[in-house]
Amino acid sequence: MKQIYVIGIGAGDPGQLTLQAVEALGRTEVFFLLDKGEEKADLAGLRELILRRHATGPHRVVTARDPDRDRAAPSAAYAPAVDDWRRRRADVYERLIAEELPDGGHGAFLVWGDPALYDSTLGILGEVHARGTEDFAWSVVPGVSSVSSLAAKHRVGLNQVGRPVQITTGRRLADQGLPDGVDDVVVMLDARQAFGAFTGQGLHIYWGAYLGTPDEILLAGPLDDALAGRIRAVRAEARARKGWIMDTYLLRRTDEG
Amino acid sequence: MKQIYVIGIGAGDPGQLTLQAVEALGRTEVFFLLDKGEEKADLAGLRELILRRHATGPHRVVTARDPDRDRAAPSAAYAPAVDDWRRRRADVYERLIAEELPDGGHGAFLVWGDPALYDSTLGILGEVHARGTEDFAWSVVPGVSSVSSLAAKHRVGLNQVGRPVQITTGRRLADQGLPDGVDDVVVMLDARQAFGAFTGQGLHIYWGAYLGTPDEILLAGPLDDALAGRIRAVRAEARARKGWIMDTYLLRRTDEG
Repeated sequence: MKQIYVIGIGAGDPGQLTLQAVEALGRTEVFFLLDKGEEKADLAGLRELILRRHATGPHRVVTARDPDRDRAAPSAAYAPAVDDWRRRRADVYERLIAEELPDGGHGAFLVWGDPALYDSTLGILGEVHARGTEDFAWSVVPGVSSVSSLAAKHRVGLNQVGRPVQITTGRRLADQGLPDGVDDVVVMLDARQAFGAFTGQGLHIYWGAYLGTPDEILLAGPLDDALAGRIRAVRAEARARKGWIMDTYLLRRTDEG
Repeated sequence: MKQIYVIGIGAGDPGQLTLQAVEALGRTEVFFLLDKGEEKADLAGLRELILRRHATGPHRVVTARDPDRDRAAPSAAYAPAVDDWRRRRADVYERLIAEELPDGGHGAFLVWGDPALYDSTLGILGEVHARGTEDFAWSVVPGVSSVSSLAAKHRVGLNQVGRPVQITTGRRLADQGLPDGVDDVVVMLDARQAFGAFTGQGLHIYWGAYLGTPDEILLAGPLDDALAGRIRAVRAEARARKGWIMDTYLLRRTDEG
């Protein structure tokens, strides 16, 4: 039986690898790298470093093109387009497992952060497995998420005592505002800097970019126009300098305001 | 300057330790163990195993009694009682750092899972640090949370594509129901098995107990009365047998129902 690992490799710092992840990396014979056509050179370099250190067994790296979504499809066709995209991605993963991994071999997909948060690998592999056309066992090695990493760097909890925390996207925050009944909201994938709409409301922001890497930037404080502007400026400058940015933040409402 | 680490040691499996955590454990000279008077023998044993393997430098373990909360206080006195409790806990931590850690020494507090989720250590240390009476530097080593661990074992994501996930407590779920606009809810600290009130609503449950340990139990499926009853029975049996239980679950609403 073929064995597939989905390995969470942490949020950017190779020290965030778990011992389990190190063990799985050492046992992997075929690493599947899915090229999304937008891969950042820094992240690719970081992943190479991880493989150089921990892929200690005989192994090879197989790269495949992750199919693009047809973003030009008219919005009436949105759901079918997404279904079609999912199917095409599953086709690629299925082919990789069928053709590139020998029987009894160990293959791995590496995922930044934790595979359970805003990553599609588990969904696609679940779909391939459900097809039943290729016989394989699969398991997930959880990783330190960028959410945990953000909280650790700011030395704050994600939740207040006995209270909930919601993890959401910048798009949802921009479209729907702060969720009801939640005082702590972690925002991911926010290209629009939605936090800017929530100044002067007694919120505190803990923002971080390139978490765990040498380029890490942290900013925090009461979310007023000055701080929102400062984050926007720092973000724009860093993005221009490096060509990409990966950031996340926690918005917190406290009794003190 | 004294250096304090708050180290996330993962959700129960020693393999979930990160390389960073291993490094910090090896550098720690004084481990502070806070006895909450309810410590489970299995967890204490697991922590001892971790120290035996990874506390490789010269070190000692200092145990202190974590003050109890005055739960008998009338509810009108609730907020002052909690404030008083926080202060007494901070007093204990402050004394430990002042008296048990030599200047220039490395001390550590170990936290199961990730220190950012439903744990009070960061809040207390922040308070001690803010008092300014004791000069120390402190940093947080993030860990794999029981939430990530649960998702990994069930091989599911915590969120659906572009959708939010909320992490909350059993008490809040029981009191306030499912939050609006959220299709994925992770429930922690649920002694009341609040999931039982949500059968027959098209939800899926992914439940796990003793995650990452040899006693791990996983149950999942459409949340109907049969499955809710089964989880309750399995939970009661395991709890009676072991004397304690630590469980968490994900409630998911999908388009398929």
